[in-house]
Amino acid sequence: MIMLFFMTKDTIEKIDADGYAEVVTLGQNRPLLLDSGEQIASFDMAYKSWGKLNSDKSNVVLICHALTGDQYVRGLNPITGKQGWWENMVGPGKPVDTDAYYVICINVLGSCAGTTGPASVNAITGKTYGIDFPVITIGDMVRAQAMLLDHLKIEKLFSIIGGSMGGMQALQWAVDYPDRAKTVIPIAATWRHSAQNIAFHEVGRQAIMADPNWAGGRYLDHDQRPQSGLAVARMAAHITYMSEAGLTNRFGRALQDRDKLAFGFDADFQIESYLRHQGLSFVDRFDANSYLYITRAMDYYDLGAGHDGVLAEAFRGTKTRFCILSFTSDWLYPTSESRHIARALNAVGARVSFADIDMSKGHDSFLLDCPEMFNIVRGFLRSEADAAGIVT
Amino acid sequence: MIMLFFMTKDTIEKIDADGYAEVVTLGQNRPLLLDSGEQIASFDMAYKSWGKLNSDKSNVVLICHALTGDQYVRGLNPITGKQGWWENMVGPGKPVDTDAYYVICINVLGSCAGTTGPASVNAITGKTYGIDFPVITIGDMVRAQAMLLDHLKIEKLFSIIGGSMGGMQALQWAVDYPDRAKTVIPIAATWRHSAQNIAFHEVGRQAIMADPNWAGGRYLDHDQRPQSGLAVARMAAHITYMSEAGLTNRFGRALQDRDKLAFGFDADFQIESYLRHQGLSFVDRFDANSYLYITRAMDYYDLGAGHDGVLAEAFRGTKTRFCILSFTSDWLYPTSESRHIARALNAVGARVSFADIDMSKGHDSFLLDCPEMFNIVRGFLRSEADAAGIVT
Repeated sequence: MIMLFFMTKDTIEKIDADGYAEVVTLGQNRPLLLDSGEQIASFDMAYKSWGKLNSDKSNVVLICHALTGDQYVRGLNPITGKQGWWENMVGPGKPVDTDAYYVICINVLGSCAGTTGPASVNAITGKTYGIDFPVITIGDMVRAQAMLLDHLKIEKLFSIIGGSMGGMQALQWAVDYPDRAKTVIPIAATWRHSAQNIAFHEVGRQAIMADPNWAGGRYLDHDQRPQSGLAVARMAAHITYMSEAGLTNRFGRALQDRDKLAFGFDADFQIESYLRHQGLSFVDRFDANSYLYITRAMDYYDLGAGHDGVLAEAFRGTKTRFCILSFTSDWLYPTSESRHIARALNAVGARVSFADIDMSKGHDSFLLDCPEMFNIVRGFLRSEADAAGIVT
Repeated sequence: MIMLFFMTKDTIEKIDADGYAEVVTLGQNRPLLLDSGEQIASFDMAYKSWGKLNSDKSNVVLICHALTGDQYVRGLNPITGKQGWWENMVGPGKPVDTDAYYVICINVLGSCAGTTGPASVNAITGKTYGIDFPVITIGDMVRAQAMLLDHLKIEKLFSIIGGSMGGMQALQWAVDYPDRAKTVIPIAATWRHSAQNIAFHEVGRQAIMADPNWAGGRYLDHDQRPQSGLAVARMAAHITYMSEAGLTNRFGRALQDRDKLAFGFDADFQIESYLRHQGLSFVDRFDANSYLYITRAMDYYDLGAGHDGVLAEAFRGTKTRFCILSFTSDWLYPTSESRHIARALNAVGARVSFADIDMSKGHDSFLLDCPEMFNIVRGFLRSEADAAGIVT
């Protein structure tokens, strides 16, 4: 069953008939305080889980998803009709072994797969938020996740794992809740958005806001969506997820369904056809305003900001064990950023492993079949679980 | 005097009062044959020149401009009201010394600074071309330039120099007219557009064509322009012209006119403000359809295409002397592409110098103050001129 566009609490409970999808309403007793100073007095958090919580709740693994990801780590994604985005990483016998660990993934605040975001109805006013949704940060996303875990009476996390923005959340967790996570595994992540990172996101936002259908952010009131602008934003971003060599190896200058140049503006080249498909398929599953808010949160991300830019100070005193992974061909969050994180952790005596994995396919390598990544994650979790005597 | 938008033969002759701007109408006796198989039976070529043609016409230097460039290499640009784009390279006593050489720069076919392009009136039909302009190639641009030089009775060129798409033209000249150029200096260029190059251009084209004001390419008929789409296209492209380190050094995460994050979608960061300015100022000086056509020509560029991908074969038998320059931080047309060109030339025994210049500012370094580039160009031209006994 394929549902187009974003989910609400009602629709998600209706379509998620397998019984392990949940949406919890929070904030009514204790509002969510945002970094902006605003607060949200009622919000939904959608999540999914796999595996079995052990008796002392010591086997919880939190998976954090990326910019356009969702809680459908594995199994059928009811929004896209496709399999989950990390089937090869999470499951029975997989590196994050659901026979051993209780795995949970929560749709981030501001997104559109069941958790409250700009496409949701403001429970206070009864109207769709749209552009009136407060601007949020990665810290806010993590704080909302912590509130959900509190609600579930899960205090400690055995591990927090994520790629890209998921890795940024994992690091934020370690900084903001230094006693809650035994281990964190940030993959293809960074510790602050660079000028180039911000620049690419700004192009995407401008493409969305330039679309007349965006209607000042109130498009849902007019039953329309800025699909063209969102597609362009996705296309621009998608280039940054792949390496130059990866694009050359996969597409090169190969033509699409033709023997010679057509001397026109159709998709002559396979890379053009591929990018157009990426853009068009994205608009069916993602809310344009969510894209604005989440990219903004990423741009605001800077773990060194509260410490005069000295990242190490953000980690001082941490007891968490870190496993930092980067990919040699990732130019969005290059190896140098992960190395900087590892060195900052070293500087304050934190326990950290760092591996730069030789993969040619760029940033999105964390989503691909990468045996070295799988082996490292599996081995790191296994040895930490054994050392901690975790009963599974 | 600032003229907005594109120039025509009439307007360019009116504003270019200093007497050395020229627009020549060609093709009426001998049509321009295009690589597509189409032909153009009447077209204008706008150019500017500096210096004095010597008695045997042996001191001609052709400057080829980049994607959004024009013939205003130096002096006041009547379109932008700013100084020329290569003042530091071309002029009296400059590396391309107008006291020694007769320097000419021709607005490329398909552009919008006086030469015929999609914003021009089709002399045959009396209507604006718009999207009915034929799709052109870098080879077509060079062929049109050769026709203008024929008209000017300039047979041989002492040197052909260009950066980025200008360098691609310089290489195309050497391939298509192996006897006409004594030397060529391609700077920050490539020998074929990669999948990543095509991808970025496709994003720009989609942004333009997604703008409702594009009106299927017939926007001039409706007295409107797809400014929002063109601005987004320019923003995306502009990121590729700068290096990650260059952006970090110049902007980092510095805020624009504020002390702290504003938690909104205004330009919080200087890089956002800068990019928006780049986009908005571009739309006043460039035609959106010209952007489509010229990016398409660049995407079609592949000097190895006619030789089973073996670039060396394109140069076999050349007598031209090459000076290939690249920049260490250029990720649009990286050093590896220039090195590939130099090796291909070596493979067929051509005379070639190759320098990879250590500059941190990315692709646009060719437009910046780069003493090493200036010294190499000056020295190369001087020694070749001396060896050839060119009388200045």
